[in-house]
Amino acid sequence: MAASLLDQLMSSLRCLPGVGAKSAQRMAYHLLERDREGGRRLAAVMAKAMQQIGHCQRCRTLSEQELCQICSSKKRDSHLICVVETPSELAVIENSIDYRGHYFVLGGRLSPIDGIGPRELGLDLLAVRLEEGEIEEVILATNATVEGEVTARYIHDMADARGIKTTRIAQGVPMGGELEYIDGATLAHAFAGRSNF
Amino acid sequence: MAASLLDQLMSSLRCLPGVGAKSAQRMAYHLLERDREGGRRLAAVMAKAMQQIGHCQRCRTLSEQELCQICSSKKRDSHLICVVETPSELAVIENSIDYRGHYFVLGGRLSPIDGIGPRELGLDLLAVRLEEGEIEEVILATNATVEGEVTARYIHDMADARGIKTTRIAQGVPMGGELEYIDGATLAHAFAGRSNF
Ligand SMILES: [Zn+2]
Ligand SMILES: [Zn+2]
Repeated sequence: MAASLLDQLMSSLRCLPGVGAKSAQRMAYHLLERDREGGRRLAAVMAKAMQQIGHCQRCRTLSEQELCQICSSKKRDSHLICVVETPSELAVIENSIDYRGHYFVLGGRLSPIDGIGPRELGLDLLAVRLEEGEIEEVILATNATVEGEVTARYIHDMADARGIKTTRIAQGVPMGGELEYIDGATLAHAFAGRSNF
Repeated sequence: MAASLLDQLMSSLRCLPGVGAKSAQRMAYHLLERDREGGRRLAAVMAKAMQQIGHCQRCRTLSEQELCQICSSKKRDSHLICVVETPSELAVIENSIDYRGHYFVLGGRLSPIDGIGPRELGLDLLAVRLEEGEIEEVILATNATVEGEVTARYIHDMADARGIKTTRIAQGVPMGGELEYIDGATLAHAFAGRSNF
């Protein structure tokens, strides 16, 4: 016999991070017993989001349009580009400090053992940006992990070969820490204290 | 300007119990960056579940069919009916102890101040069951809260007026505790130690 819809709902909910069997069960019953309208709306928005949200063709962050709002804005400082690992880290920076430059989202960090090389991180696209001649400083905001450092070093070399300055956000970020979980004050400090790389 | 799909996804996720702004953000990025297939499947199953899962016409638990599997089974003891507040409490009992009788799901507890009276709990339907003449014992498994006790007392009176015995599951359940969060051993103990009500 096929699994009941209720069982299917509980097992599907477990694709959400931090949701185990117990929470999935609580969520399923909550929606069915107390908030079907919320469940319907969530299902519709989720389907649409999975379908329609792609990546910005210029900076690779999540975007519904070919170019994200930041890349298409004329008010951003085109001399400055900040390289982050993920779209959520871009959002953390955008929401917590007064950074007015552009971004480049790697979508990960160099990890040859996992088959993640320069191509997977879109570094050919970043190279095109560096060739355009507008960028004067690359802010390396990859995480303070071993792979994040290796990735920063690699991008430093790319920029250096083209005579472009790179800076690394200061280690106000705890060693091994993920940017996503850092508070705004720490992050502002790390940005202000960035040094040549 | 309309909220972006990403913002809509994050705010919709907050209809899930225990999910605040921070978790909703993490979930949205996780699905979009790492598990679109899981997100697509979850959205489809959720939409279908909200649409197709209704309530059993006999016991009022969640069911895709008019009659749930328990109500349509010929192997259950039709002399015994256990009254619980919610479908998830029914599931807890089903999954943790060897109970072979039937159920009745109230969908709440008497709370005049919130406009929840006997009709809202389907007690007219329960009365019909008691009139059928098969039931010999009503196990009252409402929660050990003030309203749960009032509800149990009310159902006891309904059964008593028809000469049917009622029992109350033992207070192995901590005062004010919700059945849903009790471990199986405690629950088995509470069932075994049930007393006349
Ligand atoms: Zn962009
Ligand atoms: Zn039923």
